[in-house]
Amino acid sequence: MAFSLTILGSSSGVPTAGRNTTAHVLNVHERFFLIDCGEGTQIQFRRFRIRFGKVNHIFITHLHSDHYIGLFGLLSTMSMIGRKTQLHLFAPARLEQILESHYSLVSDRPLFPIVFHPLDSAGPTMIHADAHVEVTSFPTRHRIPAWGFLFREKFRPGNNRALQPRSFAHCADGLFNPSLADILRGVNLLYHEATYLHDKLERARSTGHSTALQAGEMARISNVQQLVIGHFSARYKDVTPLLDQAKSVFENTSAAYDGLTIQID
Amino acid sequence: MAFSLTILGSSSGVPTAGRNTTAHVLNVHERFFLIDCGEGTQIQFRRFRIRFGKVNHIFITHLHSDHYIGLFGLLSTMSMIGRKTQLHLFAPARLEQILESHYSLVSDRPLFPIVFHPLDSAGPTMIHADAHVEVTSFPTRHRIPAWGFLFREKFRPGNNRALQPRSFAHCADGLFNPSLADILRGVNLLYHEATYLHDKLERARSTGHSTALQAGEMARISNVQQLVIGHFSARYKDVTPLLDQAKSVFENTSAAYDGLTIQID
Repeated sequence: MAFSLTILGSSSGVPTAGRNTTAHVLNVHERFFLIDCGEGTQIQFRRFRIRFGKVNHIFITHLHSDHYIGLFGLLSTMSMIGRKTQLHLFAPARLEQILESHYSLVSDRPLFPIVFHPLDSAGPTMIHADAHVEVTSFPTRHRIPAWGFLFREKFRPGNNRALQPRSFAHCADGLFNPSLADILRGVNLLYHEATYLHDKLERARSTGHSTALQAGEMARISNVQQLVIGHFSARYKDVTPLLDQAKSVFENTSAAYDGLTIQID
Repeated sequence: MAFSLTILGSSSGVPTAGRNTTAHVLNVHERFFLIDCGEGTQIQFRRFRIRFGKVNHIFITHLHSDHYIGLFGLLSTMSMIGRKTQLHLFAPARLEQILESHYSLVSDRPLFPIVFHPLDSAGPTMIHADAHVEVTSFPTRHRIPAWGFLFREKFRPGNNRALQPRSFAHCADGLFNPSLADILRGVNLLYHEATYLHDKLERARSTGHSTALQAGEMARISNVQQLVIGHFSARYKDVTPLLDQAKSVFENTSAAYDGLTIQID
């Protein structure tokens, strides 16, 4: 049964003709978990033929607009096409105010219930558990409060008892932070941002981002099985140098592109 | 010298894989006027290779989210890539509150000046004039306050004195409204919404929209030269029947698609 990640947007703050801003979908046994929701996320769902009606849980890493502004359109469309099911929204507390102040001024308030779960913990915290998966949030180091997420399968469907439950960790925008290795240790797939090449280390530091080399290093010291890098600065028309740089430290690395699906086996 | 309309989004409230929500760019002598700004507008600019740095005037017809929500991403990107030039924003008054309440809660406020021009008139009003073009707003009849826009070229560059200045009228969401014929009379190009086929007339009326037949009729009674219809309901995978219906009343009609450019000669 599926445990797979689909990249809906692989650019950083400025989208390009080929790369949308950040959004990722984790498919756990055909239940879809949306992580971040940049502008155009609802359109990417349609383009890659993923049914957003199956999304009941949305996780927002932090409140820079390229990570949440697509919520307005996605929630509006969900409502217009008749959604009644409640939606769980895990996000920094202020997002609730942002949505509330917006909907108090316009007539587009979604007609289905939204259950808001504020992220505010200073350490790893289990924020969701159901029969299929457990989700833990952990703070990352960015210019504003930001969190990563660790998804652990509760059981692995099928007859082969030797197969272990799978895991995925999502480290969105943030500085290289080796103290996260304990949390990320041994996950099957790590998504880590790699906004810049390492020659832009000072720029990465001043903007609260990581380099491709650092993303590889994070995967190496966390002993993960597989790494996917994304959130590329729009300055890189070709991301091969970013991929090569991460691979120089951690070989089993992929570069995100919009529409990439990684099956976690 | 250019006087042309490019369609950036031709769907109604719900975008599809091939049709974004509403946004149009009028090129008047290489000065770009953006009319509405649905989700993903900045990405459409890039896709169709139109430089949004040349946009200094944005016109928002009304405050349904599929007509303005793309402003957040567009303004954010304009700011991130270093825009300093002031931007004129013509929109229903409440948009200023929407932007202000949003930016009071997040750290993404654009770093360039935005000059807000509230639309509030009950009749045709000239809202902008420069050396190249005059813009008149006029109220349309929708579920919430809404305005259309008439653009008239001030002079026609070139040596052929027989050529007349050109004009474009934009009628976004609204009911069939024959009283607009006086304003629209004889324009070179009319954009008119055509959300539904005429068999959905009751639905069109209850939602404040027009049918393709009504769009054609509006063009006919206004004696315009050319009509383009858009804002198609996502239910129509193929818009040929909408085009045929409008053409049955007004022959010189085109159906909008994302990326269509109509040169007005």
